[in-house]
Amino acid sequence: MLQVFPVEGLPEVRPGDKIGELIAAQASLEDRDVLVVTQKIVSKAEGRIVAVDPTDASAKRRLAESEAVRVLRRRGDLVITETRHGFVCANSGVDLSNVEEGFAVLLPVDPDRSARGIRDALRVLAGVEVGVIISDTFGRVWRRGLTDVAIGCAGIAAVVDLRGERDALGRELVATEVCVADEIAGAAELVMGKSSGYPVGVVRGIDPAAFRESSVRREIVRPPGEDLFR
Amino acid sequence: MLQVFPVEGLPEVRPGDKIGELIAAQASLEDRDVLVVTQKIVSKAEGRIVAVDPTDASAKRRLAESEAVRVLRRRGDLVITETRHGFVCANSGVDLSNVEEGFAVLLPVDPDRSARGIRDALRVLAGVEVGVIISDTFGRVWRRGLTDVAIGCAGIAAVVDLRGERDALGRELVATEVCVADEIAGAAELVMGKSSGYPVGVVRGIDPAAFRESSVRREIVRPPGEDLFR
Repeated sequence: MLQVFPVEGLPEVRPGDKIGELIAAQASLEDRDVLVVTQKIVSKAEGRIVAVDPTDASAKRRLAESEAVRVLRRRGDLVITETRHGFVCANSGVDLSNVEEGFAVLLPVDPDRSARGIRDALRVLAGVEVGVIISDTFGRVWRRGLTDVAIGCAGIAAVVDLRGERDALGRELVATEVCVADEIAGAAELVMGKSSGYPVGVVRGIDPAAFRESSVRREIVRPPGEDLFR
Repeated sequence: MLQVFPVEGLPEVRPGDKIGELIAAQASLEDRDVLVVTQKIVSKAEGRIVAVDPTDASAKRRLAESEAVRVLRRRGDLVITETRHGFVCANSGVDLSNVEEGFAVLLPVDPDRSARGIRDALRVLAGVEVGVIISDTFGRVWRRGLTDVAIGCAGIAAVVDLRGERDALGRELVATEVCVADEIAGAAELVMGKSSGYPVGVVRGIDPAAFRESSVRREIVRPPGEDLFR
């Protein structure tokens, strides 16, 4: 049985805030909980906020291009880019919602490191050994609608490799590397929502075998050489 | 609070079986539960099984091509295809795991209809009004690892449109169509697993506003004209 619920009562996050401290003060956590923390508050805490001219329609696109290592596609003011982290997403993850008018939020510089920082803080402050996922909302090439996915993680597998295990009929499973971190991020989104203002969710009951050192960058980001569509 | 758990005690499914009856006999359901049913048992119940020569390495690829309206990419025996449903996925969803040696399972002809059939059966047999999602395991272009997504649904929104709603700071949300059906399918995968043999999961506690008539084909499948990468 999995339980998924939001952390309630978190304050508005400002540059310099310590996310781990804020969570420890509000949440009653258990070992092997997975905390899903929305990128927005991580970026704010880390000061990844820049001013943009709200009257300049193309300011967001130019900012997105400055955050990219490559622009893959353009359509009007939308750009699909590859970020320094290796993420392929809309507008390099630059976001103008849930931030004050005239400002934009950039992705954390190293979301895996951000996740480790929160995991380590909760170990000290709350005495629990948890997994942490930093989540963001990405689109998909061939499917409409956005889903929340992992952009950083610590203490919880990003991808679980089931190759070599057997199916219910005893046949070896092939090509079954499951991206549990993205599934956990999406599950948490169902209780965090976009407009409901819960920036942190807890997923309790994940298979204990999935808890280990991990990295979105190493496990999920697909190297361009493997990629059939770039 | 969301609860996610598998339906235990389901028998091996055979052609002609009624999935709704099997679930009603095993699960204690409540109104507004969402049932996530793996494509594999739906296809088996609907007789979507064909013989393949297990000694012929390219038999699966040829079968996949025969199920496709278009082949987008090839790499060795892997083909990325567009299916008749409009799904872009590996090998047209043709699968040789969890089926007897010498056979392959094809996708259901109309997974939205399959979902409606199960939803309607549970209304009659269990007296509950539930949502049903048929799930399958798909890869992603730029991210490693597979996740479970919705290929059919009934009674539960595929995509929830939040445009026009406001964020926590009162600014209008843009570009926030959330694919809740994929997030629910992925959440259920976390308890169903690939090797654990639970073909049906229950997600309890989804926002009541998300329950309505729905269709993966109409809401999630992206028309080629919108698609920047085909």
